[in-house]
Amino acid sequence: MANTQYDFGMIGLGVMGRNLLLNMADHGFSVIGFDKDQSKNEALEQSATPGTTVKGVQDLEQMIGLLQTPRKIMMLVPAGKPVDDVIESLLPLLDTDDVIIDGGNSHHTDTLRRVEYLQDKGIQFMGMGVSGGEQGARFGPSMMPGGNAAAYDLVRPMLEAIAAKVDGTACVDYLGKKGAGHYVKMVHNGIEYAIMQLISESYSLLKHGGLDNDQLHEVFKEWNEGKLQSFLIEITTEIFLQNDDKGSGRLLDVISDKAGSKGTGKWTSQDAMELPVAVPVIDAAVAMRTISSYKEERTTASTMYPDPYKSSPASTQEWINQVQDALYFGTILSYAQGLAMLAQASIEMQMDIPLPKVVDVWRGGCIIRSSLLEVFGKAFAKSPTLSNILLDQELADIVNSTVVNTRKVVSQAALSGISTSALMASLAYFDAYRSEKMPTNLVQAQRDFFGAHTYQRTDISGSFHTEWGK
Amino acid sequence: MANTQYDFGMIGLGVMGRNLLLNMADHGFSVIGFDKDQSKNEALEQSATPGTTVKGVQDLEQMIGLLQTPRKIMMLVPAGKPVDDVIESLLPLLDTDDVIIDGGNSHHTDTLRRVEYLQDKGIQFMGMGVSGGEQGARFGPSMMPGGNAAAYDLVRPMLEAIAAKVDGTACVDYLGKKGAGHYVKMVHNGIEYAIMQLISESYSLLKHGGLDNDQLHEVFKEWNEGKLQSFLIEITTEIFLQNDDKGSGRLLDVISDKAGSKGTGKWTSQDAMELPVAVPVIDAAVAMRTISSYKEERTTASTMYPDPYKSSPASTQEWINQVQDALYFGTILSYAQGLAMLAQASIEMQMDIPLPKVVDVWRGGCIIRSSLLEVFGKAFAKSPTLSNILLDQELADIVNSTVVNTRKVVSQAALSGISTSALMASLAYFDAYRSEKMPTNLVQAQRDFFGAHTYQRTDISGSFHTEWGK
Repeated sequence: MANTQYDFGMIGLGVMGRNLLLNMADHGFSVIGFDKDQSKNEALEQSATPGTTVKGVQDLEQMIGLLQTPRKIMMLVPAGKPVDDVIESLLPLLDTDDVIIDGGNSHHTDTLRRVEYLQDKGIQFMGMGVSGGEQGARFGPSMMPGGNAAAYDLVRPMLEAIAAKVDGTACVDYLGKKGAGHYVKMVHNGIEYAIMQLISESYSLLKHGGLDNDQLHEVFKEWNEGKLQSFLIEITTEIFLQNDDKGSGRLLDVISDKAGSKGTGKWTSQDAMELPVAVPVIDAAVAMRTISSYKEERTTASTMYPDPYKSSPASTQEWINQVQDALYFGTILSYAQGLAMLAQASIEMQMDIPLPKVVDVWRGGCIIRSSLLEVFGKAFAKSPTLSNILLDQELADIVNSTVVNTRKVVSQAALSGISTSALMASLAYFDAYRSEKMPTNLVQAQRDFFGAHTYQRTDISGSFHTEWGK
Repeated sequence: MANTQYDFGMIGLGVMGRNLLLNMADHGFSVIGFDKDQSKNEALEQSATPGTTVKGVQDLEQMIGLLQTPRKIMMLVPAGKPVDDVIESLLPLLDTDDVIIDGGNSHHTDTLRRVEYLQDKGIQFMGMGVSGGEQGARFGPSMMPGGNAAAYDLVRPMLEAIAAKVDGTACVDYLGKKGAGHYVKMVHNGIEYAIMQLISESYSLLKHGGLDNDQLHEVFKEWNEGKLQSFLIEITTEIFLQNDDKGSGRLLDVISDKAGSKGTGKWTSQDAMELPVAVPVIDAAVAMRTISSYKEERTTASTMYPDPYKSSPASTQEWINQVQDALYFGTILSYAQGLAMLAQASIEMQMDIPLPKVVDVWRGGCIIRSSLLEVFGKAFAKSPTLSNILLDQELADIVNSTVVNTRKVVSQAALSGISTSALMASLAYFDAYRSEKMPTNLVQAQRDFFGAHTYQRTDISGSFHTEWGK
């Protein structure tokens, strides 16, 4: 079988597909890619490290014929119909037990459908989230595969070889049944939205207090050397220093405030509501990206709603420390909500998502990697099915040590007119979550009053309805 | 044609269907209802006002035969498949130009599908939201019909007769094409969630300050006589006085804080994200209902996260006034977000929703009726396609007069550990909306840094990408 020589095949040779293949080749695997666009096949081969086995072809059948069986094929094509089209084009060419991995940004419900569809046909299918961007794909991504467990065993050596490493452990693991891989990646991105929004609010709080980009760089640099150490803080540190190659100042100052999105944050919020589970910090981040697009309305509104307070808190060291605690607090709450969503979804949708492994996989390679994941890892080591990390005592001690400053920052932001949507959502969630009794008894009373929706009592079990006002 | 004598037919004689028919009969129309459950037919006939023409039958074909043509038939059955089943059972029995109205809580996408499906068959279909609960249906609901405009002209005299009246105007009007009726009702309910949450937060703020139910009743009674006058404040006033017929105290104090929901608030948030349009106060209200169900976790958390502040602000008259302004502010922001959602959806989905008529219809009969709707009516009279009522100068004056106290309340709530999720979401939205420049330029810089998502500049048009850190 002279033709069956390649270890791994890739469908779609955009920058992510190409970089993953090159990464594999550098780790000793022979790889082949398929793309209809011949220039992409050429780009793949030309960028291969000398001495590695890398081939690009324009004919899908040719690639299939050149793969060792059971074949291991990943696709990186746009989510939606293109994924189904590729699957259909593969089916006549594959043999039983061949493995297909969808490494794109598919919605988990599509992945679940495909897992079940292909299971019936004897094909092993996995949906896998990949995080880390282009550089991550090339030199060490975080990967979140789910679906067919037997398929994972077949591709595990390759995925472990190319994944980011933390303390020698590869940032990839089998993360559950059905659409679990893409579900975990979706929630990863939801947390990413939340933390990015929190960082932008911290930037706003300090900038209003008078810090310039150089000073912001210094503050974030210091933060990145402390408890806030993370990829997102690290790149923010660099962003403040980036010079504008089309002007004389810093690039950040001329970047438009209209923030785009690819939709995974939105999916997280929508799916959380469906479960339901509360992820209000993510909701707030999604809403703020939307408001950022109302540029014209905001410009008009800015002339109608003057800031009633002339001055913001000066960015003294005390204020900087308070903002640091608030950002830390908000970041913890973002992870807490996302992980609680995974815990709940895993049960509701029978995905068996191993939360200790999720936080392990997130430690390196991905956008939300941070030193906090070590803390969460310890919490899940003690209690692998913890419904909310806020219930871990070690984390509670950390949260209690930062919440006082968080309250001061939120209080000051409200008075100063600085929008801190995600930070406020963190605190409001926290204060509700730590309340044995919420004021929602009034909501239930109202619902029963106008809609006869009934209510429960605190002292007697059952459902009750009252003819109110009589 | 001795058989064709009834003006209006109803399918589904639950309490809403029965009450709407009885309401019609009281206004001189002859009505007939169909329900498979004979006891409901009997209940309908027995509750008819003497001298009115009301009949209940167990045979759908019989009802159809007894209706004047073109027939006018409303269905009030559970949303989803039951609506489609009823439609299919009706089709063989109907003639061209007969009218079907779905008065249930269908999702607007289902309604759109049915409008188009039945249009092809020559049947005039409308989706209509009905608000006001059982009492509203019996004595004057607010009704939000959309879909086939010609159908509305046929049923208009009946709907206007039974609708709630404000200053002699009926609270019903044609609210747009396609699924507009159910879309408007969905957003109505989203706003309802937001305002209910805001009221529960105000209750919490004043209760923590030491007010008992009698004092809360007095405060809300006074509020209901002022700028906060509304149905929800009115019923809240009464709720505080309701005695517990199973105990010795007030009923509110023994009602469980687990708040239920029928899902329309969730739909509003999910669909808003889909557009996208930002409705963070509604998002917050949906999240709080979800957190209210975490009773066990909250009880555990309450022992791990002690309130760091021993005392809440005392409910002095000054504090009560501040909370009043904050509730007023939050309520305005809830309407603003909901109405902005309707404005945007109307454009995106070609529904031609007439916003001036929407706020007119909401003035009476429905759950979110309030004196504020007069203010919004004036704003839309000046500018019928206003994308956000915050851009109306008269409203801006009101908002500017209440925001200072809102800031004080949010600031104090944050320090006191009282969760005010919806209030904070109102303020954070407001402070973002009135910002010519948001800090989301940093979010765009981050996205371009790790994902090459590109950014726009404030000075040069086009999309740009930077090799950050180089």
